[in-house]
Amino acid sequence: MPVPAAPTPTSAPEPSSSAPFVSRHIGPQADERDKMLAALGLGSLEDLVQQAMPDAIRMTAPLDLPPALSETETLDVLRGLADQNRALTPMIGLGYAGTTTPSVIRRNVLEDPAWYTAYTPYQPEISQGRLEALLNFQTMVSDLTGLPTSGASLLDEATAVAEAMTLARRATKTGSTLLLDADTLPQTVGVVTTRAEALGLDVAVADGPLLAALEAHDVFAVVVQTPGASGRLTGTDELRALAEAVHARGGLVIAACDLLALTLTAAPGEWGADVAVGSSQRFGVPLFYGGPHAGFISVRAGLERTLPGRLVGVSKDVDGTPAFRLALQTREQHIRREKATSNICTAQVLLAVVASMYAVYHGPEGLRRIAEAVHARATGLAADLADGGVEVVHGSFFDTVLARVPGRAADVVAAAREGGVHLRLADADHVGIAVGEDAHESDLAAVRHAFGVRDAGRHHGDLAGSERETPYLTHPVFNTHHSETAMLRYLAALSNRDFALDRGMIPLGSCTMKLNATTEMEPISFHGFAGLHPFAPVEDAQGYATLISTLEGWLAEVTGYARVSIQPNAGSQGELAGLLAIRGYHRSRGDEGRTVCLIPSSAHGTNAASAVMAGMKVVVVKATDDGSVDLDDLRAKIQTHRDALAAIMVTYPSTHGVFEEGITELCALVHEAGGQVYVDGANLNALLGLAQPGKFGADVSHLNLHKTFCIPHGGGGPGVGPVGVGEHLAPFVPGHPFLPGSEDVGPVSAAPFGSAGILPISYAYIAMMGADGLTAATEHALLAANYVAERLRAHYPVLYTGRNARVAHECILDLRPITKASGVTVDDVAKRLVDYGFHAPTMSFPVPGTLMVEPTESEDLAELDRFCDAMIAIRAEIEQVQNGEWPAEDNPLVHAPHTQARVTADEWTHPYSRRVAAFPAGLHQGPLYATGSDKYWPPVGRIDGSFGDRNLVCTCPPPEAFE
Amino acid sequence: MPVPAAPTPTSAPEPSSSAPFVSRHIGPQADERDKMLAALGLGSLEDLVQQAMPDAIRMTAPLDLPPALSETETLDVLRGLADQNRALTPMIGLGYAGTTTPSVIRRNVLEDPAWYTAYTPYQPEISQGRLEALLNFQTMVSDLTGLPTSGASLLDEATAVAEAMTLARRATKTGSTLLLDADTLPQTVGVVTTRAEALGLDVAVADGPLLAALEAHDVFAVVVQTPGASGRLTGTDELRALAEAVHARGGLVIAACDLLALTLTAAPGEWGADVAVGSSQRFGVPLFYGGPHAGFISVRAGLERTLPGRLVGVSKDVDGTPAFRLALQTREQHIRREKATSNICTAQVLLAVVASMYAVYHGPEGLRRIAEAVHARATGLAADLADGGVEVVHGSFFDTVLARVPGRAADVVAAAREGGVHLRLADADHVGIAVGEDAHESDLAAVRHAFGVRDAGRHHGDLAGSERETPYLTHPVFNTHHSETAMLRYLAALSNRDFALDRGMIPLGSCTMKLNATTEMEPISFHGFAGLHPFAPVEDAQGYATLISTLEGWLAEVTGYARVSIQPNAGSQGELAGLLAIRGYHRSRGDEGRTVCLIPSSAHGTNAASAVMAGMKVVVVKATDDGSVDLDDLRAKIQTHRDALAAIMVTYPSTHGVFEEGITELCALVHEAGGQVYVDGANLNALLGLAQPGKFGADVSHLNLHKTFCIPHGGGGPGVGPVGVGEHLAPFVPGHPFLPGSEDVGPVSAAPFGSAGILPISYAYIAMMGADGLTAATEHALLAANYVAERLRAHYPVLYTGRNARVAHECILDLRPITKASGVTVDDVAKRLVDYGFHAPTMSFPVPGTLMVEPTESEDLAELDRFCDAMIAIRAEIEQVQNGEWPAEDNPLVHAPHTQARVTADEWTHPYSRRVAAFPAGLHQGPLYATGSDKYWPPVGRIDGSFGDRNLVCTCPPPEAFE
Repeated sequence: MPVPAAPTPTSAPEPSSSAPFVSRHIGPQADERDKMLAALGLGSLEDLVQQAMPDAIRMTAPLDLPPALSETETLDVLRGLADQNRALTPMIGLGYAGTTTPSVIRRNVLEDPAWYTAYTPYQPEISQGRLEALLNFQTMVSDLTGLPTSGASLLDEATAVAEAMTLARRATKTGSTLLLDADTLPQTVGVVTTRAEALGLDVAVADGPLLAALEAHDVFAVVVQTPGASGRLTGTDELRALAEAVHARGGLVIAACDLLALTLTAAPGEWGADVAVGSSQRFGVPLFYGGPHAGFISVRAGLERTLPGRLVGVSKDVDGTPAFRLALQTREQHIRREKATSNICTAQVLLAVVASMYAVYHGPEGLRRIAEAVHARATGLAADLADGGVEVVHGSFFDTVLARVPGRAADVVAAAREGGVHLRLADADHVGIAVGEDAHESDLAAVRHAFGVRDAGRHHGDLAGSERETPYLTHPVFNTHHSETAMLRYLAALSNRDFALDRGMIPLGSCTMKLNATTEMEPISFHGFAGLHPFAPVEDAQGYATLISTLEGWLAEVTGYARVSIQPNAGSQGELAGLLAIRGYHRSRGDEGRTVCLIPSSAHGTNAASAVMAGMKVVVVKATDDGSVDLDDLRAKIQTHRDALAAIMVTYPSTHGVFEEGITELCALVHEAGGQVYVDGANLNALLGLAQPGKFGADVSHLNLHKTFCIPHGGGGPGVGPVGVGEHLAPFVPGHPFLPGSEDVGPVSAAPFGSAGILPISYAYIAMMGADGLTAATEHALLAANYVAERLRAHYPVLYTGRNARVAHECILDLRPITKASGVTVDDVAKRLVDYGFHAPTMSFPVPGTLMVEPTESEDLAELDRFCDAMIAIRAEIEQVQNGEWPAEDNPLVHAPHTQARVTADEWTHPYSRRVAAFPAGLHQGPLYATGSDKYWPPVGRIDGSFGDRNLVCTCPPPEAFE
Repeated sequence: MPVPAAPTPTSAPEPSSSAPFVSRHIGPQADERDKMLAALGLGSLEDLVQQAMPDAIRMTAPLDLPPALSETETLDVLRGLADQNRALTPMIGLGYAGTTTPSVIRRNVLEDPAWYTAYTPYQPEISQGRLEALLNFQTMVSDLTGLPTSGASLLDEATAVAEAMTLARRATKTGSTLLLDADTLPQTVGVVTTRAEALGLDVAVADGPLLAALEAHDVFAVVVQTPGASGRLTGTDELRALAEAVHARGGLVIAACDLLALTLTAAPGEWGADVAVGSSQRFGVPLFYGGPHAGFISVRAGLERTLPGRLVGVSKDVDGTPAFRLALQTREQHIRREKATSNICTAQVLLAVVASMYAVYHGPEGLRRIAEAVHARATGLAADLADGGVEVVHGSFFDTVLARVPGRAADVVAAAREGGVHLRLADADHVGIAVGEDAHESDLAAVRHAFGVRDAGRHHGDLAGSERETPYLTHPVFNTHHSETAMLRYLAALSNRDFALDRGMIPLGSCTMKLNATTEMEPISFHGFAGLHPFAPVEDAQGYATLISTLEGWLAEVTGYARVSIQPNAGSQGELAGLLAIRGYHRSRGDEGRTVCLIPSSAHGTNAASAVMAGMKVVVVKATDDGSVDLDDLRAKIQTHRDALAAIMVTYPSTHGVFEEGITELCALVHEAGGQVYVDGANLNALLGLAQPGKFGADVSHLNLHKTFCIPHGGGGPGVGPVGVGEHLAPFVPGHPFLPGSEDVGPVSAAPFGSAGILPISYAYIAMMGADGLTAATEHALLAANYVAERLRAHYPVLYTGRNARVAHECILDLRPITKASGVTVDDVAKRLVDYGFHAPTMSFPVPGTLMVEPTESEDLAELDRFCDAMIAIRAEIEQVQNGEWPAEDNPLVHAPHTQARVTADEWTHPYSRRVAAFPAGLHQGPLYATGSDKYWPPVGRIDGSFGDRNLVCTCPPPEAFE
């Protein structure tokens, strides 16, 4: 397909005098690259590619991308695009509210690499800072919703409702229908319907009050949205009666709610809701044209073990110190695979941190003050409208007024737009006006002017019938950090507890922890990108329109697909969207019976969970001893399921870190049987510029922009998971109710363009790298992985290799024989790496008892060597255990990681020294003038995860617990 | 005087729903304030003010300032002002060049509180990160200029030349005249002339080649500027001949040079210069409409001990680890007082860090590539001009082309402006074109278009006769961090070594280390503020014009003066400007004989040094036992010097931290004798909103915007030192050659508005605080100091108090009796505070053997109590030494601060435990869930300063030194 032209910078690209970005992104400079090649006995990067990658999949022509821009030019281009968006005061509502991000939080969280370059806190000992922030988030949601257990964030409100639906389905025994409030957000209806349809669940939207509608449906759950899309607030008595009626039928009540409103109105837990969901966006998270924002979910007692997504819990470390970690991980898709009930993997950690810190900074009184001001302004506006003869539809509301202006709604909305305000055109006769924290008096004046009414000066809110009676945010953390100095220090203290890319390498296999360049990050703070409402009229979003179509075009080019949609706001949603496209394709051809999805045993667990969510049946294909898909078994499974074959889902290069030779044959076999080939794009970092899945046999892929395309991991999210498809699948990519012409296919995300606000990051990356730069990055990723494999091979068996004994962009170190011989486990090695100043590689995936190392192209030779030296030194330590120098139960490996408290304790009884414990082999040292003080210390020792799972605590413990 | 109206935000200020900024700036919230008042036995803040402050100086009416704006409104206003500046591509030259700040450096230095909230590295053990960065700066300057010793930065190029002049005067025995190159920057001529005139030195500008002009002057030094203001590059042979001729006459050669040019052209040290000076702005420091930028100075062997300003040197700590600290401090004005030869105090550390990191990131090859590109573009442009019939004046140049266009220079400049480029209108017939790193091809096209010439496509530079032959930046630090990942980690590692306000309180008396709010800081990155050339036409600087006149008006209002000038770019320059105004005033009245400046013995050393620089004779006035100015001695001194009395210079409240009762009488006595009263504004944080120096008797003050008005200390600069004067002194405030109508008075800074680029910070502070907020801040500063004094009084004698035993905004703790009894020194206590997680208070100023504590209004009660608890615990430790429990030579005080290396050493022989050493009394703990890991560790132990002074090393030592 034709690639849209990129907007040109103020001048044509020219040879820059400064170093090109590619040399900043790629760690090894030319001399280092040559040393690494020499260590591999190779003369060039091309030699390596030829050795490692099957010829059959290699591209024959270079990528068709514009010439690389400099960092300055890229900032100019993106500033120009941001300026093409008219981010007026956002008073559209519908789940997205104007808010003010406190500057101290913007600068020291959203714009701070110590926060945004962190990985998911799977290594909890080195993630205590963001785990505390997430615990604050859970406590905040739990307090405000009045339900005891909250998760650590979901992707958005619409998917949160969908997750609540499946939770309710699992938790109930009767009923067949999910009944939605008539006032449910339209995008929620869209996403829930998409999800339910694939799962075979019935969804109905009430045509009047829910309580009355109950009679007509056999419900397993009811979703009540209050305040509703129209602004209407349901009274507490009515809600209580509804909850009683639903419970009497054995169903669950799901409340879709608004955290700010809940500072004034009765909490769902007070009136009987079982589950509460919503978005925390209005707690200081920029609108971002729809995302990323942190959705939330909380549940009543008894449902906590059914929660989808991540959950932070309190446990203790080996010394009894309270310590945080992800709880109940056995619920998760990466463990339960096709038995999982949700495919959620990435959360929205960075945004959840922002929202929680907004609550920490404002405190309960500050939040209540903001809510009261918003409500008073909305009330005043409603009174002005009524005085001016405009009918106000609802008598009870929080922040949103629905005005009836027969025949002139479009005119009113247009007039408000002239005055600098975006209102909601509900229909030809109705206008919605949502008052946010950021609405100035001048904005309200513009609204009044648009309606032709005058300011009566009344600002007296009244929530009779809905008032909240319970306290919230009473924990000290929400009542301490109210000066900017205190807030700054709290943020700094938490980030100082964590290990992120600003400290050192995070060699996580399959996660591609590469550079998140500042020039890529800066534009997301531009007002034109950060401040736009997702449902702003398209003529006010021209910058985004260009950016999105250009980026989708570039992604299509690099993957070789006909069409890419950036709507899915996480890899898991991309998988679902891709599988739904396959499903839609088969059904469009009358192939309703094609429901089997083949998945290799080595696949990421999310694949299987996604297949189930797409209404497919998972059939596992075996792996051979060398880790490849067993083509014989594949043939057999195809034979068995030929008529039912919907698809195969494979990762390429495989999760074993090799380029499988059989990929082209695999594709042919599946196609021949009428199936579609889904290539998981998790490992695209090994292909870009060298091979295109869309050209070597795949029909669909999802990409992870937070892997290959530099969106930071944010401590566990946001992710972006675009889906790319071949021409025949293009009609089946996600649509959206607010995207004219796309209504045929349901959405998978709440916002039409998913996490639009962070797309400038990937755009900038591709613009600055160009075709040659992207190819060079891939080559260097392969080089780094093969260099590490080469250096470590003699010390740790490299489990799988491909052609010519080469790996792809990562390698698996097999600890199992070492564990068998010495008793030292993969866990011990991972934790010991912390003492050496590293984040551990991926543990026990895809093979239990192994470590998967992905160094990426961004680590320079010094850091790669530092890591290899550490691993080799650890191997020598294992040797000392193995040969009895150190007892199996008392050595630096089993006691790792060593905390300051341990190493500075007055008593020391171990057979190894304090220096060996904390400063082994000098490897903690920094780049040049390394003094010991550059060492990163874990705040807690090894954490007892199962203690926390047995004693589940998911809200902030009292400070006394830490004494 | 009338205060200019502040620009209004998009809507009128309105009651904000969010917490007002004042509650974010002031640490203690209402409940904490009440607790503190109760501890003092007071009912209200007003009670405290009445007790502490003399009635006679209290203001009677509130400040006339606009209502406080919210943070959002303030950002809107400042964005509007920035947008009123047209920051076109800056091709004006004259010492200010277009440059590109690498994003990674902008975000992780300029915009990172860990860097910008740090204090001057007087406590070197907790400042190793920025000391290393400054050592890199010194190495960079030393390498590029070819002179072995460089200082850690000066204020700007013009003051650097002036400092070099006085250095040369001291270092030479013959001659009476400083001879300036005909091609010297005009602002340099202005500043040097101002300085020389006061000191009685002769300055002459050569009217032709310097070598020829030598004959006509009896020089003690010559300043050669190459490349010159006109762009002309002097050949190496000519420079060598000049140096020989000057040396033969016993004079010194000062080279004013360009660091980027020096990557290609012969270094001053190579051709015989004794001193090199200049600005490092073009190494990635934004133009900022003139500043702040780091000036530099380097000298040949033999002159290092005469260097003005700060100098970083290498020494070692108590364990022999190499460690950095400020060297040769006995040169400095705060020690040598009126015997000092420079009053330079603040440097430009933050900007020097940026410039040094630019060199670290680009490395020698990258810098050379940038220089070559700049030179090639300039050469190409010159060729195009010549082809097009435009005369190019100089045959040899680096980046600046001087074109002769008789009669149409103004038209050409205007046409270029239309094309988006600012050129230099040298005179009616000449246009200067300076090519910066940031000049795009489109900018060069606009320039050609303005001249009416075409692109011949030639870009071939030629520097025959000026080539550099020596290598530079060969140290590994300039050849390692070239990927962004490596750069990010280096910056993070350095800032992690330091203690700044993001970690905890910095209770430095006289330094006012209060909040630098993010909303104040963000606007300095706006392109309209950061990208404007200082000599841009005034019509393109309207935003700055409004901002500056508004801010000057507000400062005049709060201080009670008739006129304020923000030109002085440091407190020292403000002092000089104020004293020069007094001098000018006396001389305008024929009082040439009034040259005596009375200075109390307690004054900051800079006062005396400034007086000497202003051509005055210092006469010291004694202090009484209670620390006040001895009014009897004052009367006697006035009597003695009545006819020669120029001024008295006092600090109010005094450097002893009290409101002296005698201030009004003091003013009257001096005035009666015909003298002027200079009130040093260092302690204005104790007065704002309560009293105005301009109203209670003073004629002139300088302010420190980096103290009272929230400009961050930046690790030792920038500072801004506006001068405020009464109506009669208004004609004598600094002018500038580029400020039409102000030429009568010479400038004290290179740029007309000094450090204009950071004025938005103080503007934002005043705009967000308003009159009530500023007053509340002052009251809380007094409350905090009195609270600390009250809590510590029983443990450490409070040396001076004023009325009702109250202190002002700081208090002096007298360690002398304790030292006498126990042997524990003020140094020991200061270093022990590091173990407890604090930056030490000011040591031994103004009284040796004491600690001066200024908590400021921004510290909340928890932090104040944490500090008091630490001081009390330390007092108990001293008791253990005093009563013999711990030997005088082996206790946690004398060994403080304790490093990780010490506390984790395998051997421990001290009579106190490891835990006591590093985790005393649990006081290292952070705000809530404090685990030991929140502790700040000093990277080195106590540093041996005198070893370093005896073995002066001021460039980066080889990495092996640290093994």
